Amino acid sequence: MTASNQMASKPGDASRDTPRNQRADTLTDMMTGAPLGIICGSGTIPYAVADALMRRGQPVVLFPLRGWADAVAVKAYPHHWIALGQFGRFCRLAEAQRCRDLVLVGGLIRPSIMQLRLDWGTLMQLPQIIRSFRGGDDHLLSGVGRIFENAGFQVIGAHEVAPEITAPIGALGRLRPNAAFEEDISHGFALLAATSAFDVGQAAVISGHRVLAIEAAEGTDAMLDRITTMREAGRITLAAGVGVLVKAPKRRQDRRFDLPSIGPDTVARAARAGLAGIAVVARATIVAEPQRVVEIADRAGLFVVGRPDPEAPV
Amino acid sequence: MTASNQMASKPGDASRDTPRNQRADTLTDMMTGAPLGIICGSGTIPYAVADALMRRGQPVVLFPLRGWADAVAVKAYPHHWIALGQFGRFCRLAEAQRCRDLVLVGGLIRPSIMQLRLDWGTLMQLPQIIRSFRGGDDHLLSGVGRIFENAGFQVIGAHEVAPEITAPIGALGRLRPNAAFEEDISHGFALLAATSAFDVGQAAVISGHRVLAIEAAEGTDAMLDRITTMREAGRITLAAGVGVLVKAPKRRQDRRFDLPSIGPDTVARAARAGLAGIAVVARATIVAEPQRVVEIADRAGLFVVGRPDPEAPV
Repeated sequence: MTASNQMASKPGDASRDTPRNQRADTLTDMMTGAPLGIICGSGTIPYAVADALMRRGQPVVLFPLRGWADAVAVKAYPHHWIALGQFGRFCRLAEAQRCRDLVLVGGLIRPSIMQLRLDWGTLMQLPQIIRSFRGGDDHLLSGVGRIFENAGFQVIGAHEVAPEITAPIGALGRLRPNAAFEEDISHGFALLAATSAFDVGQAAVISGHRVLAIEAAEGTDAMLDRITTMREAGRITLAAGVGVLVKAPKRRQDRRFDLPSIGPDTVARAARAGLAGIAVVARATIVAEPQRVVEIADRAGLFVVGRPDPEAPV
Repeated sequence: MTASNQMASKPGDASRDTPRNQRADTLTDMMTGAPLGIICGSGTIPYAVADALMRRGQPVVLFPLRGWADAVAVKAYPHHWIALGQFGRFCRLAEAQRCRDLVLVGGLIRPSIMQLRLDWGTLMQLPQIIRSFRGGDDHLLSGVGRIFENAGFQVIGAHEVAPEITAPIGALGRLRPNAAFEEDISHGFALLAATSAFDVGQAAVISGHRVLAIEAAEGTDAMLDRITTMREAGRITLAAGVGVLVKAPKRRQDRRFDLPSIGPDTVARAARAGLAGIAVVARATIVAEPQRVVEIADRAGLFVVGRPDPEAPV
């Protein structure tokens, strides 16, 4: 699983996803001038979030996770490296910066408990950490989120502090799905709705009403590569340019912790797999490097569309 | 997908799955001495079915599918090679043998329509064949089954003519699942029940309530190998000897056409993937080479259990 865990801090319009954060008494960091903390996993999205915030004059401080975050990209921002499990060190660093609001964003492969380098702050939380390792990603990430909240931090979704990093409703590039692909998209979203109760399945590939692949722990990239492999092996024999990658957030999940994301590499892999396009849930899917996404999709002849969120308030 | 399509012909106690075959006027082939036809895909199961029938004095005639059936194994039985799509030729051969009852059994990868070598008999059925290529395996296989029935054949499940080839209730080998694995088994069966409405998902791997993999078009073998790969890549970091492979037939499907199956290779792959065991639905899962299944499972320390069928009549 790619735990593209999104959590973020946000002052003003916050929190339809996070009612417990609706505190009238806190127009927090943005008003006080304190930096917003971004705990960075892998990929480019943490820096897109940081840039969006800085464009609005919101200072940030990055906490790149050793082994996951991009050591070059992080240099452009105020930052302190931390290791997974160093919760005590993180708390001291954040306090020194007067940082109370947090976004957790970027790829994060589930670590083995044994691989964590535990300090005293973490050890104090150990029973809760161990509990959060049972069950799927959502369980793990919201467990981690609770640890931050118990320590007095406010955790907010990246999509809330930086809505411009999410997919809009409609086509991102030049192409639009035809009626047959629209059917596959609907079929795929219905499948993901059925599997999301099991804390699994943020993505699937559908072609002509047939489910070619469902994502579990392997992640979207490996699932797309499986389509390529099955085509090459003759296991699936479809014309190129059919089949749709569908991604959706799990139902009723805390979206601060695990929004799906796509990026240029997703489109390139979907093209290699011979798919017709990609459909995501608008405003609930992060698009990394949207301009490159559009360039690659247009060149390869794929559509990329955002569909209205079935869980959005009317 | 492995279209381990099971269909079979059966006279006496036939057909709780196949009410339309409950014809009081036909105590068919077994009484008439006419051979029962077995259309053979890949693997060893077609020959286990043939052996079970012959042990009871029921003559058989095999119709091995060129490109799928085992050319050596088939020599031990009366047989006529056929190619997928040669429906006209098949009808003539079956008629010459007075064969009316059919079992369709063995692995069968979905062919591209273009790869089929079509004859006139097939061409006459073409619109129906094309329709059956939309949707999942169940759709494809029941579509093919209908073509046989429209031509006057009676198609019966392999599990009905040869119940001894299916998993019993309880442990097949020495080991039994502990309470934690029982939880994973229940979680897995619930997941497969949710996905089966989408004509997908006869198998999944669960560990500690987490869904590690769901099978779609890639088949069980490739799904198990994915667990091995994810372990090696550190994408999942679990102790060896945890995780359960769960297989179940799709709900409300016509079981003459697509029962799940396991065999020695399934157990060997599950062992390589570091799993604790395998759970299947008793009487609704074919076990190829059961003695070797038990040997390999016992040696590798895996359990293999059959659970009562939630869809069985009370």
